Amino acid sequence: MLEKTQDILLAAKAASRKIVALSSEEKNRALLQMARALVADTDLILAENAKDLEEAKGKISDVMLDRLALSAARIEGMAHGICQVAALPDPVGKLLKEYRRPDGLVIRKKSVPLGVVGIIYESRPNVTSDAASLALKSGNACVLRGGKEAFRSAAAIVTALQKGLEKAGVPAEAILLIRDTSRQSAQAMMQAEGLIDLLIPRGGAGLIRACVENALVPCIQTGTGICHVFVEKSADMEKALRIIENAKTSRPSVCNAEEVCLVDRAIAAEFLPKLQKKLVTDREAQGLPPVELRLDEAAQKIIPGTQAGEADFDTEFLDYILAVAVVDGTEEAIEHILKHSTGHSDAILTEDSAAAELFCQRVDSAAVYVNSSTRFTDGGEFGLGCEMGISTQKLHARGPMGLEELCTYKYVITGNGNIR
Amino acid sequence: MLEKTQDILLAAKAASRKIVALSSEEKNRALLQMARALVADTDLILAENAKDLEEAKGKISDVMLDRLALSAARIEGMAHGICQVAALPDPVGKLLKEYRRPDGLVIRKKSVPLGVVGIIYESRPNVTSDAASLALKSGNACVLRGGKEAFRSAAAIVTALQKGLEKAGVPAEAILLIRDTSRQSAQAMMQAEGLIDLLIPRGGAGLIRACVENALVPCIQTGTGICHVFVEKSADMEKALRIIENAKTSRPSVCNAEEVCLVDRAIAAEFLPKLQKKLVTDREAQGLPPVELRLDEAAQKIIPGTQAGEADFDTEFLDYILAVAVVDGTEEAIEHILKHSTGHSDAILTEDSAAAELFCQRVDSAAVYVNSSTRFTDGGEFGLGCEMGISTQKLHARGPMGLEELCTYKYVITGNGNIR
Repeated sequence: MLEKTQDILLAAKAASRKIVALSSEEKNRALLQMARALVADTDLILAENAKDLEEAKGKISDVMLDRLALSAARIEGMAHGICQVAALPDPVGKLLKEYRRPDGLVIRKKSVPLGVVGIIYESRPNVTSDAASLALKSGNACVLRGGKEAFRSAAAIVTALQKGLEKAGVPAEAILLIRDTSRQSAQAMMQAEGLIDLLIPRGGAGLIRACVENALVPCIQTGTGICHVFVEKSADMEKALRIIENAKTSRPSVCNAEEVCLVDRAIAAEFLPKLQKKLVTDREAQGLPPVELRLDEAAQKIIPGTQAGEADFDTEFLDYILAVAVVDGTEEAIEHILKHSTGHSDAILTEDSAAAELFCQRVDSAAVYVNSSTRFTDGGEFGLGCEMGISTQKLHARGPMGLEELCTYKYVITGNGNIR
Repeated sequence: MLEKTQDILLAAKAASRKIVALSSEEKNRALLQMARALVADTDLILAENAKDLEEAKGKISDVMLDRLALSAARIEGMAHGICQVAALPDPVGKLLKEYRRPDGLVIRKKSVPLGVVGIIYESRPNVTSDAASLALKSGNACVLRGGKEAFRSAAAIVTALQKGLEKAGVPAEAILLIRDTSRQSAQAMMQAEGLIDLLIPRGGAGLIRACVENALVPCIQTGTGICHVFVEKSADMEKALRIIENAKTSRPSVCNAEEVCLVDRAIAAEFLPKLQKKLVTDREAQGLPPVELRLDEAAQKIIPGTQAGEADFDTEFLDYILAVAVVDGTEEAIEHILKHSTGHSDAILTEDSAAAELFCQRVDSAAVYVNSSTRFTDGGEFGLGCEMGISTQKLHARGPMGLEELCTYKYVITGNGNIR
């Protein structure tokens, strides 16, 4: 295994220049061998994972420990995920556009791999196999740099995947893991001009900020979701309550969960007590975790709850907490969202199609919803079959990133002595 | 006119949120009014341009002075360019994809404006109207920051364009010019997070480097072109000579001009003397500027010319200079190009389809050519109808950037109480 980050990056670039030529069949064969090798190495991977867990105990939270823990079933699941990627259509080599000039020159715009995709992530070992399989399917080499806590697990997984590649006759350097898990290696990736074609930081706000500030290579910001649900005055209240409970409580720790509820002043006096009952009283009665409501001044006059501070409307709680504000209609809701949203997913609940249209046009987020939970923002749910992360920026990829978003294009121009 | 860069950026953001709602008809009406206002203000613009020219005399080269100089005909030409943009199809609001989930949720991927496009450019006044019209057509506000030498001209042009906007009932802040032409204002644009959605530096290597290193907002690198033409052993020599002369001499100062010629060793002894005759002897005889050949060792053994230094294969000459190297076949040509190309435009001249295919697949440039001059890499020539610059990077836009490349997309999801 290569030791130095720079050597790994050079090897990945060299590999990317070989795998760009692989056919769909060759890539799919390699993916199936990767899946098989992963399962074959189950015992080895579990042994390394046990060491990671042992060392991490007491150092990271129980939730994080659970994310880190592998089992034969989880490895089986990862292998299944790889097979699903093999079954997806090849995003490379698509003819995106064709233009024939009067002089006979044919200009074709074709999808091609980016080259080398770098991913900086944290402790979930399944990201290792997910990212590697998506990169290979899209014809890219990948350089993975996981968290310290999961290093042994990730190394065992990558070793298995590389065995699969070799069995299929594909260079093992198509999937490389960086051994150095210090800040230095992340920094080296951010500055690997000419070696990394796309860097995807998957992690906390600190990591993403570091990429924005330091990266010299192209980066895509992912993840942070301060998602809003606005209940417009014409909303069907029963639907609204169901949607809000789902958006907030079905999985509070994920980026597409609702963090802020905006309620139209015209219905606040009627709707807020129902909301409080649905998210607090009813859930307590059912033995479910109640939602802590952080209320602006207007909402506080109507229902009980915590007084919201300024920061509560700019916080990704990732918990059973919901900030609630009363707004004067759709325009004010839009202004609030433009000011506070992270551009991930925002919803309007309304039976008024003009309000819905205005909201969808003016809210500047990757996903804008009408009468639906925000929880659907996900590559799988959107029909992409997979996901490399959710982009919250506007260049290249926005929202869930699937295989197409791991490609670029080139113009291939064929002439017969054409001059200008 | 707003004075402070920050105020200008804030005003542009606010304007972008209004113009996102304009229909195609409204945008086209505004473009036609802009064209009309430009022509109406001809005298004012020429007077300001005369002051710029007066002040710039002796400070910038004659070529730059010529680029800076306006005339009634040139202003007419700029107005005509705006009308051509009005006639192009609207890139906004296209349904790029639709996915209907079994639960009835409809997920639509739609093209939308980016928001605010910032352009940092140099002294050509026509860039002011070109960039402004492309931005407006694609539903974006734009913030222009031109060079010091052209400031009065740019200000007069922007004032005219704004009169056109106002006549059409569109906020004048959709097109704003930064008054400060110091480094500070460029720096402020690079760091205008949340205010500029895409920054396009159009200028020299120094400006582009500053953007890569300092920009916190998304940037697209444009322009630098070290373009290669490789003459493979099966090439039709007559076609090859015609193409190379065109690629090198039809307009040496532009980014799609050839800078390096690679010749297959198998035909070097026969081809190089013909090349020397075509580019040097024949041109001298015709009274045309001859091309200075900078030759590697192998080429020097065959024809007369300057000895090439290492740097000559990494230099954008933008002049009647051509670096020439002999290579061992297509593989070595590809390796040379991967190492030295700026990823703009590279060509193979060959009658062997396998060599052409290998070249097109492995050369990692925005435009790869077979048997054609590289001079066609241009928005107009590619059928885009216009151009905002040529991207030499791989994220979002590659090659000539037209209206589509000034858009992003969003997902608009419509449900009826859908929960996950």
